[in-house]
Amino acid sequence: MKPHYLLICAAILAVCSCNTRPRPLEGETLQSPDGQLTLTFGLSEKGEPMYSLDYGKTAVVLPSRLGYTLRGIYTGSHPEGGNSVLDYTPDVDLTEGFRMVDISRDSFDETWETVWGEERYIRNQYNELAVTIKKDVLITIRFRLFNDGLGFRYEFPGQDGLTYFTIKEENTEFRMAGDNLAWWIPGDVDTQEYTYYECRLSEIPREMRRAMDYRDHRTFSDSGVQTSIQMRTDDALYVNIHEAAVVNYPAMHLELDARRLCFRSWLCPDAEGWKGRLQAPCKSPWRTVQVADDARKVLASRLILNLNEPCALEDVSWIHPVKYMGVWWEMITGKSTWAYTADYPAVELGVTDYAKATPNGRHGANNGNVRRYIDFAAENGFDALLVEGWNEGWEDWYGCQKEAVFDFVTPYPDFDLPALNAYAHSKGIKLIMHHETSSSTVNYERHIDAAFDLMGKYGYDAVKTGYVGNILPLGEGHYSQPMINHYNQVLRKAAEHHIMINAHEAVRPTGLCRTWPNLIGNESAQGTEYRARIKPHQVTVLPFTRLQGGPMDYTPGIFESDISKVNPASKDYLASTICKQLALYVTMYSPLQMAADLPENYAGHMDAFQFIKDVAVDWEQSRYLLAEPGDVIIIARQARGKGDWFVGGVTDENAREVVVAFDFLDKDKSYEATIYRDAPDADGVAGVQPDGSNPGKRYVIEKRTLSSKELLNLWMARSGGFAISLKEISGKIS
Amino acid sequence: MKPHYLLICAAILAVCSCNTRPRPLEGETLQSPDGQLTLTFGLSEKGEPMYSLDYGKTAVVLPSRLGYTLRGIYTGSHPEGGNSVLDYTPDVDLTEGFRMVDISRDSFDETWETVWGEERYIRNQYNELAVTIKKDVLITIRFRLFNDGLGFRYEFPGQDGLTYFTIKEENTEFRMAGDNLAWWIPGDVDTQEYTYYECRLSEIPREMRRAMDYRDHRTFSDSGVQTSIQMRTDDALYVNIHEAAVVNYPAMHLELDARRLCFRSWLCPDAEGWKGRLQAPCKSPWRTVQVADDARKVLASRLILNLNEPCALEDVSWIHPVKYMGVWWEMITGKSTWAYTADYPAVELGVTDYAKATPNGRHGANNGNVRRYIDFAAENGFDALLVEGWNEGWEDWYGCQKEAVFDFVTPYPDFDLPALNAYAHSKGIKLIMHHETSSSTVNYERHIDAAFDLMGKYGYDAVKTGYVGNILPLGEGHYSQPMINHYNQVLRKAAEHHIMINAHEAVRPTGLCRTWPNLIGNESAQGTEYRARIKPHQVTVLPFTRLQGGPMDYTPGIFESDISKVNPASKDYLASTICKQLALYVTMYSPLQMAADLPENYAGHMDAFQFIKDVAVDWEQSRYLLAEPGDVIIIARQARGKGDWFVGGVTDENAREVVVAFDFLDKDKSYEATIYRDAPDADGVAGVQPDGSNPGKRYVIEKRTLSSKELLNLWMARSGGFAISLKEISGKIS
Repeated sequence: MKPHYLLICAAILAVCSCNTRPRPLEGETLQSPDGQLTLTFGLSEKGEPMYSLDYGKTAVVLPSRLGYTLRGIYTGSHPEGGNSVLDYTPDVDLTEGFRMVDISRDSFDETWETVWGEERYIRNQYNELAVTIKKDVLITIRFRLFNDGLGFRYEFPGQDGLTYFTIKEENTEFRMAGDNLAWWIPGDVDTQEYTYYECRLSEIPREMRRAMDYRDHRTFSDSGVQTSIQMRTDDALYVNIHEAAVVNYPAMHLELDARRLCFRSWLCPDAEGWKGRLQAPCKSPWRTVQVADDARKVLASRLILNLNEPCALEDVSWIHPVKYMGVWWEMITGKSTWAYTADYPAVELGVTDYAKATPNGRHGANNGNVRRYIDFAAENGFDALLVEGWNEGWEDWYGCQKEAVFDFVTPYPDFDLPALNAYAHSKGIKLIMHHETSSSTVNYERHIDAAFDLMGKYGYDAVKTGYVGNILPLGEGHYSQPMINHYNQVLRKAAEHHIMINAHEAVRPTGLCRTWPNLIGNESAQGTEYRARIKPHQVTVLPFTRLQGGPMDYTPGIFESDISKVNPASKDYLASTICKQLALYVTMYSPLQMAADLPENYAGHMDAFQFIKDVAVDWEQSRYLLAEPGDVIIIARQARGKGDWFVGGVTDENAREVVVAFDFLDKDKSYEATIYRDAPDADGVAGVQPDGSNPGKRYVIEKRTLSSKELLNLWMARSGGFAISLKEISGKIS
Repeated sequence: MKPHYLLICAAILAVCSCNTRPRPLEGETLQSPDGQLTLTFGLSEKGEPMYSLDYGKTAVVLPSRLGYTLRGIYTGSHPEGGNSVLDYTPDVDLTEGFRMVDISRDSFDETWETVWGEERYIRNQYNELAVTIKKDVLITIRFRLFNDGLGFRYEFPGQDGLTYFTIKEENTEFRMAGDNLAWWIPGDVDTQEYTYYECRLSEIPREMRRAMDYRDHRTFSDSGVQTSIQMRTDDALYVNIHEAAVVNYPAMHLELDARRLCFRSWLCPDAEGWKGRLQAPCKSPWRTVQVADDARKVLASRLILNLNEPCALEDVSWIHPVKYMGVWWEMITGKSTWAYTADYPAVELGVTDYAKATPNGRHGANNGNVRRYIDFAAENGFDALLVEGWNEGWEDWYGCQKEAVFDFVTPYPDFDLPALNAYAHSKGIKLIMHHETSSSTVNYERHIDAAFDLMGKYGYDAVKTGYVGNILPLGEGHYSQPMINHYNQVLRKAAEHHIMINAHEAVRPTGLCRTWPNLIGNESAQGTEYRARIKPHQVTVLPFTRLQGGPMDYTPGIFESDISKVNPASKDYLASTICKQLALYVTMYSPLQMAADLPENYAGHMDAFQFIKDVAVDWEQSRYLLAEPGDVIIIARQARGKGDWFVGGVTDENAREVVVAFDFLDKDKSYEATIYRDAPDADGVAGVQPDGSNPGKRYVIEKRTLSSKELLNLWMARSGGFAISLKEISGKIS
C-alpha cells in the first residue's frame, strides 16, 4: 500500500475507535456473593472516577464515568441579613482530577420480613466497596453488588469547605455494551403516563416522536428516557437501570447518547433550572443496574427494596392490604361527573353556596349511588370503597392552576359524609378518602392537618392522593427536589395519623415503601384509566419497569370493555379479555387492588367475578413461571398465611399457547382449582363485532382438582389471559 | 413666512404637542364631599378608559389610561385529567375598544372605632362612581372620592366567558401634571430597605444608581419606583400614590415615563413572569391618589384604612399595643450572636446534637442574659421582651436557601423556654416569640401549627416574623401573588390562635390592619437596624410614605449612637441625637414600640429614658403641628382614654428652630410638662469627637407647667429633635 493510503486507513481506524469498545477498566474489583457479577472501579489517567460491570466474561456496563458538575461553592456570609445575591465560585467540575484517598469493604447478609409484599421474607445479601476520592471536595462512592445487580451512590461527608452546594448536573454514565433492545418511555418532567415503546437503543431518537403518545408532554430531549428502563442484550441478558431511595433529591431521568450507546443521568430541574440543592453531609439516591440471565429473575429481584432503609415505623399494625371498589370508573368513562353542578363557570370555596346550586343530575358521589356501591362491595367481601368527587371544588378543578382549589373537608350537599361512613361501617367496610390536590401542593399542605383529622374522626384509614395538572409552586415539575420533599412530607404526616397513602401522578416509586410501608400504592404510569389507549403489551412490560420501585394501583377488573355500554357518548374499547383482567390481580402486584368496574357490569358475570373475590392481595411467596417483557407474564403466588395459591397469565397482542407446571404446589396436598380462561373464540383486540357481540367477554370456567405433578395447556387469546385459584384441600393426594 | 417654514413650524409644534397638556377629559364627574376634588372618567375616541383628577382648577392627575393586558382566556377543558399545557387565546388587550354599559353612584359617611391607632375614631366619607364598561369582557371600575384623595379599583364580575385569567400587566397610569418633587425608593421585587431619595420626577432615571443604596437589589428598571411615593407639586400640593387592600394579587410598583411624567403600574411577577392569576368574580386592590394642600393633611389622611374592609374579627380583646425591649440590638451590632455554636459549618435540625456542641460564648439568647433583660424591662414598666436567636438553626440560617432551616419549636440548650416564660410572667411581662423564616415559606407553613401551639402553651401572644433572604418557593419574589397569599395565610392562622403579628421583610402594608388588627406591625422599610446607613432625613419621610399603609416597627430608642461602645469591632455611628430618638415614639406611629437599646445604655440615662417609660403607644387623637417631607415633623398625640399628651419633633440634617403652640390641649386643664430637648451644643451628625465626646448625647430636661395658651421656642440640633410629655393636672388653671 502506498504511504498515504496507510495514513487514510489510520485516520479511518482512529475515527472508528470512538465507537469501539474501550479498554477494560483497571482498579478495585468487587464480586457479587455468587461470584457472577464483577464491578470494577478505577480512576482514569485524568483522574476520572469510572466503573464497569461484567456478568461472567460478558460486559454489561462498559467503563462509564461518574461525578458531578456543581454550580459553585457558596462563599458569602452576610451578617446584617437582607436579601442575598448568593455568592458562588464558578462551576465546580467534579468529573476528573480526582485521587484515591480511601477504600473500604464490607459484606451484608440479612433476611427481613415485609409488612406486605410479593413474599413474606426478602434476603438482602451484598458485597460492598466504598471508595473515597478527593479533588478539593471529598466524595465517597459506595457500591453494593448483589446477585441480582448493582447499586451505587455518592456520599458527601461533612468536611471543611463544603456545606451548601447546588447541583448543575449529575454526571453518572451507564455505557451499554451493545445496541440493547429496550422497553422505555420518554423522559418527561411531569408525567410517566406513556405506552412503553420497544426498540433498540440506537433507534430511540428516531422513534421518540412516535413514543410521545401523551398529549401534554414535557419531554426534555429527543433521546431522553425515564427509569426504570428494561433492556435485553443480544447475549440474552436482562439489564434494568433505575434508582432507589430518592429523598431530598430530584428524580433521575437518562439522556441517551445513541451513537455511543451511553446513558447519562439527567436530573429533574427545579423552578430555577438547578438540579438539586444539598447540604453536606448528604447522599445521593442509589443508582441501580439489575442484571439477570432470565427475565423471570428480573421480576423476582428485590434489589430496589433492599437498598432502601428498613421500616421506620415501630407500630405497623394499622397498615394492611386493601381490596376495594370505587365510585370512580363511572366518572372516568364520562357516565357521571366528579362535579356537582353546572351552574357556575368557576367556584370559590367558602363563598360559592352549593346549597343554592342546581345539581347537574350526573354527580357520581351522591348518597344513593354511594350506598349502592357500599352494598355491593360489602356483599362481595371487599375491604373498602373509594369515593371520588365527594368534596366541593370539582367544577373547575383542572387546568386552572388555581391555588385554593380544594379544602379536602367540605362535602357536596348530596354527600353525607358522617352517614355514609356509618353505613359503610355497619356493613363491615371502610370508605377510602380522596385528596385530589390538582397539583396545588402548598394549598394541600395548608389543609392537610384538618383533612387528616377529618379522616380520623370518621374512620377513614386510607387516602388516594392525586397530582393532576401543573404543579404549584410555579415553575416546579412533578419530580423536582421540592416536590420529592412534598410527597415525602405527606407520607410522614400520614404515618403520624396512621393513614395509608395511594399517591397518583406523584414521582414513580423507588422503594421507599420499605421505609414507609404506609405507602401502599402509586399510579405514576399509564394504567387502566387510559381505556382505549392501553396497548395490549403494556401490562407485560410494567412489572419489569414501573413495578421495580414499588406496587402500582393499576385498577384492573374491567369486565365491560365496550365503554359505549357505560357511556353512550364514548367510543372507547378497552382491548383486553375478561380473563386477562382477572390475571392482572396476580401479575400486577399491589397490596391495594381495585375491582374497578361498575357493580352492574360485574352483576352479569358473577362467575368470573368470583376470582376477584377469592384472590389474595398479600403473599407468602411468588413464583415467576414465564416472563418476557412486551410479550407474556405468568406468575403463581401463595396467599400469605394460607395454603391457597393463585396463578395469573397475560399476553400481548399475540395469542399464545402455554404449558403451566404446578410444581410450586405443596407435594403433599391437593387443590381445588378454578380455571378462568379465554374461550376458544375469545379475542381481546378485535372489538365489538357487527353483530354486536364482544369477543373480549368470552370465557370458560372449569373446576378440577390439581396437584403439584400436573401440567396444564392453556391458550390465551390476543390481549388475553387466564387466572387460576387453587384452594388447598386438606389431606393427602389420593 | 415661506410655506416650507410653516410646515417646519407645524412639524415642530406637532412634536411639541406630545409633551403638552392633553385635552381635558370629558365624561362622568365625581366630586369629593367638600367639593374640592373632582374625578373625571371617560372613554376616549378609541374606547380607552381614562380618568383624571383635579384639585379645584388645578390638575393633579392628567388624563390617564386604565386597563389590563391579559395573557389570554383559558379555553381548554380536559376531562380525562393529566397534565395540561394550558390553552390560552392570544394576549387579550383590555386597554381600548370599550363601550359604556352602566353607571352607578353612591355616597357613604360613617365613623368607625379603631382597635388601636393614631386616633380612636376615623371618619369614612366618600362619594362613589362605578362605571361598567365592556369589550368582550365586562369590567367595573369603582371610584371613591374622599376629601383627602381618590381610590379606585377594577372589578371583574362573574360572567360567561371569563373565569380564570392571567394578568400579563396591569395598565393603570398616573400622569402627573408637572415635574413634581418626589420622595421615593427604587422599585424592587425583594426589598424596601432603601434610603428615601429626593429629586424631581424627570431626574429619577439619572439618579437611580445613586438611589440604589441597598446591596443586593433586585430593581426592575432605571425608572421604576415603589409605592407609597410622596410628591409635592410646584403648586404646593402634596400628592401620594399607593394602594390599599392587597389580597390575592401581587404588589404594585410604578414604572415612570420620565418624559411624559407618567407613572404606570408594574406588578410584581410570579416565578413564571406573569403578573397575577385571577378567578372572576374578583377585584383588584384599590389604587390610591392622596391629595392635600398641606403636608400635615397627608399625615392625617386615613384614606388607605378607609378603603379596607372593616375588622373581620368578632373578638378583639386579645389584641393590644405593646411596648417592648429585646435581646436583639446586641446581635444587630455584632456584640453577640444569634447562633449558639461555631462548631459546625452547617447544621441539620433533628440530626445535629447541640447538646454536644461547644457554646461560642457569645450567644445572646442565653438564660442569664434573658433574665437580665426581663428584670430591666419589668422594672421599667414594659409589656414584653422580644428574644431572637432562641431556637436551633441560626448557624447557617442566611443565604443558603435552605428549605428545612428552622422548626420554630426547638430551643438552644441555653434557652430554657418554659422557665424563662415563667420568670417573665412572674415579673408581669410576656416574652415575644421570634419566627425568622429565612424566606423558606413552605417550611414555615409546615411548622406553623406546632409553632403557634407552642406559643399558646407558654403564654406568648405576639410574634415577630422575618423573611430575610431569597424566597422559597424558588423563583418567587417577596411581593408576588403567592407570597401575598402566604403572608395573609399566616395572619389568618395567627388570628385563629389569638396571636399578634409583627412581620418584617414582608410586603409593605396596605391597610389590611383594619381588617386584621392582629397585624400590629411591619418593618418593610429601612429602619434603625441600618445603624450608620440611616440618613437623618429618613424619619421625616417615612410617615408620609411607608406609614400610609400601616404602622412601622421602626425600633427607635438608641441612646448609644457610638456603636463601637457596644461592639468594639464596629465603626458605625447612628446619626441621631438622643432627643430625636425619644421623639420617634410620637412621630413614628406604631402600636408596637421598642426601646431598642441595651439596658446598660439606658442605665446611664434614666432621666431621658423616663420619656420612653411614660410615652403612650395608643392614641385618642393626634395633631400634626408641623410637617414637611424630608425636613421636619412635629406631632402631638393624646393618650387613649387619658388626659395626657405627648409631643415629638424630629428634623433632618439641618438644625432647626421651631415654635410649638399648645392650643391642642384642653383649655380648662393645666399640664405638667417634661421637655426633653437637644442641648445647645448637641449635634446628631458630627459623630464622636477627637476628645471622645459624643455631641449626639447632649440633652437638657426641663419640667414646667404648660397650658393651652402657651408657645414654646424649641431648637433642634442637626438630626435632632425634642420630646414632651404632658401630664394632665387636675383642676382649673390658676
